[in-house]
Amino acid sequence: MTKLDIGIVGLSVMGRSLALNMADHGFKVGGYNRSASVTDQVMKEHPHQNLIPFHDLGQLIASLSRPRKVMLMIQAGKPVDAVIEQLIPLLGQGDIILDGGNSFYEDTRRRAKMLEEQGIHYLGVGISGGEEGARFGPSIMPGGNRDAYESVRPILKAIAAKAMDEPCCTYIGPEGAGHYVKMVHNGIEYADMQLIAESYLLLKYVGGFSNRELADIFHSWNQGELHSYLIGITADIFREADDLTDGELIDYILDSAKQKGTGRWASIEALKQGVDISMITSACSARIMSNHLEARKKASGLVNAPAFNPVTDKEQFASMVREALYTGKIIAYAQGFSLMQDASEQYGWNLDLGRIASIFRAGCIIQAVFLNDITKAFESGSGDDGKPENLIFDRFFLSRINEHQDSLRKAVSTGVMNGLPIPALCNAISYLDEFRGKAVGANLIQAQRDCFGAHTYERTDREGTFHHEWRKSNDN
Amino acid sequence: MTKLDIGIVGLSVMGRSLALNMADHGFKVGGYNRSASVTDQVMKEHPHQNLIPFHDLGQLIASLSRPRKVMLMIQAGKPVDAVIEQLIPLLGQGDIILDGGNSFYEDTRRRAKMLEEQGIHYLGVGISGGEEGARFGPSIMPGGNRDAYESVRPILKAIAAKAMDEPCCTYIGPEGAGHYVKMVHNGIEYADMQLIAESYLLLKYVGGFSNRELADIFHSWNQGELHSYLIGITADIFREADDLTDGELIDYILDSAKQKGTGRWASIEALKQGVDISMITSACSARIMSNHLEARKKASGLVNAPAFNPVTDKEQFASMVREALYTGKIIAYAQGFSLMQDASEQYGWNLDLGRIASIFRAGCIIQAVFLNDITKAFESGSGDDGKPENLIFDRFFLSRINEHQDSLRKAVSTGVMNGLPIPALCNAISYLDEFRGKAVGANLIQAQRDCFGAHTYERTDREGTFHHEWRKSNDN
Repeated sequence: MTKLDIGIVGLSVMGRSLALNMADHGFKVGGYNRSASVTDQVMKEHPHQNLIPFHDLGQLIASLSRPRKVMLMIQAGKPVDAVIEQLIPLLGQGDIILDGGNSFYEDTRRRAKMLEEQGIHYLGVGISGGEEGARFGPSIMPGGNRDAYESVRPILKAIAAKAMDEPCCTYIGPEGAGHYVKMVHNGIEYADMQLIAESYLLLKYVGGFSNRELADIFHSWNQGELHSYLIGITADIFREADDLTDGELIDYILDSAKQKGTGRWASIEALKQGVDISMITSACSARIMSNHLEARKKASGLVNAPAFNPVTDKEQFASMVREALYTGKIIAYAQGFSLMQDASEQYGWNLDLGRIASIFRAGCIIQAVFLNDITKAFESGSGDDGKPENLIFDRFFLSRINEHQDSLRKAVSTGVMNGLPIPALCNAISYLDEFRGKAVGANLIQAQRDCFGAHTYERTDREGTFHHEWRKSNDN
Repeated sequence: MTKLDIGIVGLSVMGRSLALNMADHGFKVGGYNRSASVTDQVMKEHPHQNLIPFHDLGQLIASLSRPRKVMLMIQAGKPVDAVIEQLIPLLGQGDIILDGGNSFYEDTRRRAKMLEEQGIHYLGVGISGGEEGARFGPSIMPGGNRDAYESVRPILKAIAAKAMDEPCCTYIGPEGAGHYVKMVHNGIEYADMQLIAESYLLLKYVGGFSNRELADIFHSWNQGELHSYLIGITADIFREADDLTDGELIDYILDSAKQKGTGRWASIEALKQGVDISMITSACSARIMSNHLEARKKASGLVNAPAFNPVTDKEQFASMVREALYTGKIIAYAQGFSLMQDASEQYGWNLDLGRIASIFRAGCIIQAVFLNDITKAFESGSGDDGKPENLIFDRFFLSRINEHQDSLRKAVSTGVMNGLPIPALCNAISYLDEFRGKAVGANLIQAQRDCFGAHTYERTDREGTFHHEWRKSNDN
């Protein structure tokens, strides 16, 4: 028998889809699942001449061509460590393990180090796009040993989504860089979805638009600079009839959203690094707050709320919300990319933000025409002085922000005066005003710290640190 | 020689002040510092009959009465572990180590576990109040072994600040509970300071108040429900002349504020626990953003900003800002206390939030008349149905919020329309509107997640989880 090109361990939705995607592209794939029944079911439901089932991990490994390539498509966390332990005695010098799950990048770093000491390469591969992406073309973010990447490159490039004929797969960087970028991608996805949800609240409760009108609005937005997968499905969602009642489905869906861990991981890493990604954090927190259904119900009866103040010019209002959403989106991406930029510097990863933006253009949830502009911003050095150190400095985005920021301000003001929770939009404008802030009030905080803790203060007119003997009145 | 009551290891500012405070209260204190010169200098500058210097750690321990009590007043992190290693062979069954530094609560938990296995008790003691507090009466938050606390209780109660004759010291809970509560205290302090800084921006740039007028405003605020240490020193700060120029000091202080780690720790723990403390997080991030002076300068020249729109009725405006600040403060404390509440449940600490609020009433940076009301809220069960599960549900604070929330909304709107960065106020109103949100837009997020990831959705009209086969238009 010819040796197989790659083995996939874990054949639930993502693993199975990826295996079939590889098989479609002519690679000989061995599939193994801990529960043999899963393997059998996959073969029954999705028979493919290039997909060979295995019920024994050792036999899978023995059937692979060298260097042997084994991709783990299993639950992040302890299961990954457990399978690695099983694989170590079966693999040898130069063989490659790929982890295609949502592993925490520090785990990936640890595993890579441990395995490299035994001569086994380890790649942490971020994969975005859900089931459909995995099956027909995901966005792929591989990180780890560069030579090992070169060995698997033909397979990953072949199965990746294509944006303008370019595969949405690029080597991200060493260690856990691939999983790190995937984590930030997910954080951006949270912020993007939250911005759309806030736009929905504004349009529905202040704009007074029906679901049908909302569908049309999002559909029309999807023809312009907001064109993206998420805006497209949002338009579709508002058109959907309910299966179980005569109503429209969106009105029957519980107003409470769950989340997995990656968005919050990004927020935690940002806090550790000292980078502000307030929009991503607020998107995670908004989902948390949405889950407190009992408390919300009780509070809605006790805490006063302003009455909605409907608009007169609905079209103009929708246009204002669109510009606010677009500006908010620029700032969310600016935050996410500044986090990657900082990680790149702190960890010496040398991330290519332009290449990273380019592989988000297709296959993944945040795919959008917008990402062409981000790619251009980082690739062509469109900043005032070369590559922009923050997306906001990119000439194109700067002009958009300057044109649209007034709409963002008005949308925030409208939401707040009407009692609508719009944390992502609020944090977007706060970030912009801090970012360009001539005065941010931190001089008062310095004064307070020197006053109560003798932390010293710095001056505007000379170098060095100073301490002042503050007089305290009898007030205290 | 009579045996000494307690030993202090580490005699820099905080350790020295605490040692002298204990000595003042009649306790015999042994002082030791790794650098003997520090010990000598303390004895030279602050001779005290009850403070005995030691140049040898073993001799200090040998001079203590049993159970021996040793308080570490050294830098958090590795130095604490190093000193513990030195102490272990010197201490015996039932002896007590107290860590009075800003240690991370997980470190305290780990150390307590390790030491208890050797029969040595370990208390993690949060101490707030800066140098002056330590010297004349801090707020003290001891956590760890309960019996060990009883042994040191007389000393800690004696040196603590007094609020209405009650010592600001209470047993917090087991393990790292004391250091955890200190961490949250610091987070609240960050939010409180940020709210004051944002009020300052509003008053100065939109209200058009001079420093002298600002001093008067904060002084008058300090006579009412905002009466607190931070408002008091803020009034004083605006009165201060510059030492080095003819101007007023506040105008010469650099608009950039530093921070230590504890506020960010609180934000990270909140994200891990799944609790929203957006105001604390935004206060930490605001300081981070304030440090990017170069980028801010560059951005202020490139990003458009709205012109300030000065108010006509200055007095009314100041009153609006006061109400916004007060409402924001309620929400900041509601967030901080909800984090402690959640930790109490998750870690089984059985925290008494009323007692905790009561020891914040004096000695610490956040001391305020406001904390009497929080104490009452949690102690008397002033919520709608017993103890409020969130401060917002307390009858007193609920009435304040309902009375003042319109001012908070107007202040946010004014700040945003005038281009002032007011992230803490923005996150205050966002939190309130999420907390009482009848509609928060999470139904759309659920729909999106089911649409792109088959994550299933829940319904408003029946139990269970559902999956819908979403139709996708040609848009995507």
